[in-house]
Amino acid sequence: MNDQRYLWLLLIPLGAEYTELHELPDENFACLLRHAKSLSQILKEQTKSEKVNIAALGNHVRQLHLHVIMRRMDDEAWPNPVWGKGTSQKMSKDQLTTATNLIQAACC
Amino acid sequence: MNDQRYLWLLLIPLGAEYTELHELPDENFACLLRHAKSLSQILKEQTKSEKVNIAALGNHVRQLHLHVIMRRMDDEAWPNPVWGKGTSQKMSKDQLTTATNLIQAACC
Repeated sequence: MNDQRYLWLLLIPLGAEYTELHELPDENFACLLRHAKSLSQILKEQTKSEKVNIAALGNHVRQLHLHVIMRRMDDEAWPNPVWGKGTSQKMSKDQLTTATNLIQAACC
Repeated sequence: MNDQRYLWLLLIPLGAEYTELHELPDENFACLLRHAKSLSQILKEQTKSEKVNIAALGNHVRQLHLHVIMRRMDDEAWPNPVWGKGTSQKMSKDQLTTATNLIQAACC
């Protein structure tokens, strides 16, 4: 998500027909969660975040997507969930580059 | 959770030292997610819910726990996440028995 308040990833499995985690074939389910686990571990360490929030909600946007959000005790919504709190603030070009680099490195 | 507004489960892996999903050993991680997947599928069908929300947040309570929540379009918080919306309403004895039976059957 392009929001400078959080490092916030959306993992979206291929297949617009999936709306629930349990609908994913076993292999895709395991793959998605393996990625979430790995990204969570690496990005928490890299960003020195206090907590990771991982969630599959999808009440607004039904296509299956998994939120992976780095949380800090000084972030805007802490200790509450991030959804619906305040207003998204777009990243600067530099912030976007930093976030993209972090995520790309974590994916390798 | 004892809240008549939602069928809301907390899956808590053994081990008070775990605070993040990625800290779980692979086997426990797979086991937890397998349970979440199975409960999600069975309970969504049994309760004719529109959506399942699954989340590992843990900002308030650090010991690792996974929320599995059946959502309906007529529930109090819809389409927003349930956390921090309104006030918990304890189930009656009958509601508690029904919920317990549903969950026990889904676990078998």
